[in-house]
Amino acid sequence: MAKPSALENLTQALQCLPGVGVKSAARMAFHLMQQDTAGAKALARALDDAVVRLRHCSCCYTLTEDVQCATCVDPARDQTQLCVVETPADQAALERTRAYNGLYFVLMGKLSPLDGVGPREIGLKRLFDRISPEGDERVSGTPIQEVILATNFTAEGEATAHVIGQALKGLPVRVTRLSRGVPVGSELEYVDVGTIAHSFIDRR
Amino acid sequence: MAKPSALENLTQALQCLPGVGVKSAARMAFHLMQQDTAGAKALARALDDAVVRLRHCSCCYTLTEDVQCATCVDPARDQTQLCVVETPADQAALERTRAYNGLYFVLMGKLSPLDGVGPREIGLKRLFDRISPEGDERVSGTPIQEVILATNFTAEGEATAHVIGQALKGLPVRVTRLSRGVPVGSELEYVDVGTIAHSFIDRR
Repeated sequence: MAKPSALENLTQALQCLPGVGVKSAARMAFHLMQQDTAGAKALARALDDAVVRLRHCSCCYTLTEDVQCATCVDPARDQTQLCVVETPADQAALERTRAYNGLYFVLMGKLSPLDGVGPREIGLKRLFDRISPEGDERVSGTPIQEVILATNFTAEGEATAHVIGQALKGLPVRVTRLSRGVPVGSELEYVDVGTIAHSFIDRR
Repeated sequence: MAKPSALENLTQALQCLPGVGVKSAARMAFHLMQQDTAGAKALARALDDAVVRLRHCSCCYTLTEDVQCATCVDPARDQTQLCVVETPADQAALERTRAYNGLYFVLMGKLSPLDGVGPREIGLKRLFDRISPEGDERVSGTPIQEVILATNFTAEGEATAHVIGQALKGLPVRVTRLSRGVPVGSELEYVDVGTIAHSFIDRR
């Protein structure tokens, strides 16, 4: 074997990253060792640091370093709206729009029966505790009035939104879903038929 | 800011990997922290370990943990052939073929004038020291008789092979290049014209 084991170990370890196979991992390992050992050291420190310091927000369940995340403790946010997203990355995408000033609930996943991820695994129980009056009092004095389902518009995301919507029917909250439709800036000719059909159904 | 700084740091640090932008990095960071903290710890250890232990082989310049790599010290390898490759990954690809039993020289790069990488940066001097009689004696008793240029068939790789070929003209070694041609198993109809043209030129 010509390759040293430290390089093989690194190539192996890099494959824990989503979307990285053996060839990408080998390329990454080579790049780091040949051209960016400083980056490799920084990455090692960031990984250790994140593993040690990150935990789930007691309120919205996103990843944070404190008991509650900065959004949940921000008094300027609208305490009556709760936006349900799949991941912190989705939350960040919504925050970038500056179109929403309410609170969030991060599922940290989506329903995916084929992978063994059911309602229990994505923490629907936590979501109900958050919304229902008792759970809400524990968190803040203002009850949630609207739950906005902002899971992805994939099969799993739609299923997740549907299950949550059904389950919330008994609670005194308005449940809405982000609108489907034609992306801003796109020409109808190049938009898929499913999207156009939905933009008819959801027309204003 | 809703996102904690440890997560932001990790997202930032992951972008040192080639081909990883801010969105991929965010997805990777989230995946590691939510589903694979063991993988994150293992990756941090592998990175630290590789940075500390890896160095360049004194003979072929590949990455190794010893003074000389396993290939260079293997007496069963043909000591008269030297295959010049760009990276350890290319070397590994050639080794997988089991079609070559000589030695290697790993450039650890390629000529890329636009990125400021000239003949000096990719260590052509080291290559000449390796091939020329004095340099060769230091390494092993048998002089190199054939240099096989196995740089990639990209513009930079071809340029690198050309420059090395020109520079080796004065030395008493045979300089060859891997043949270009139609990939095994492919149909002519679907092969690009440049490749077919080269397979005419290099026909046997």
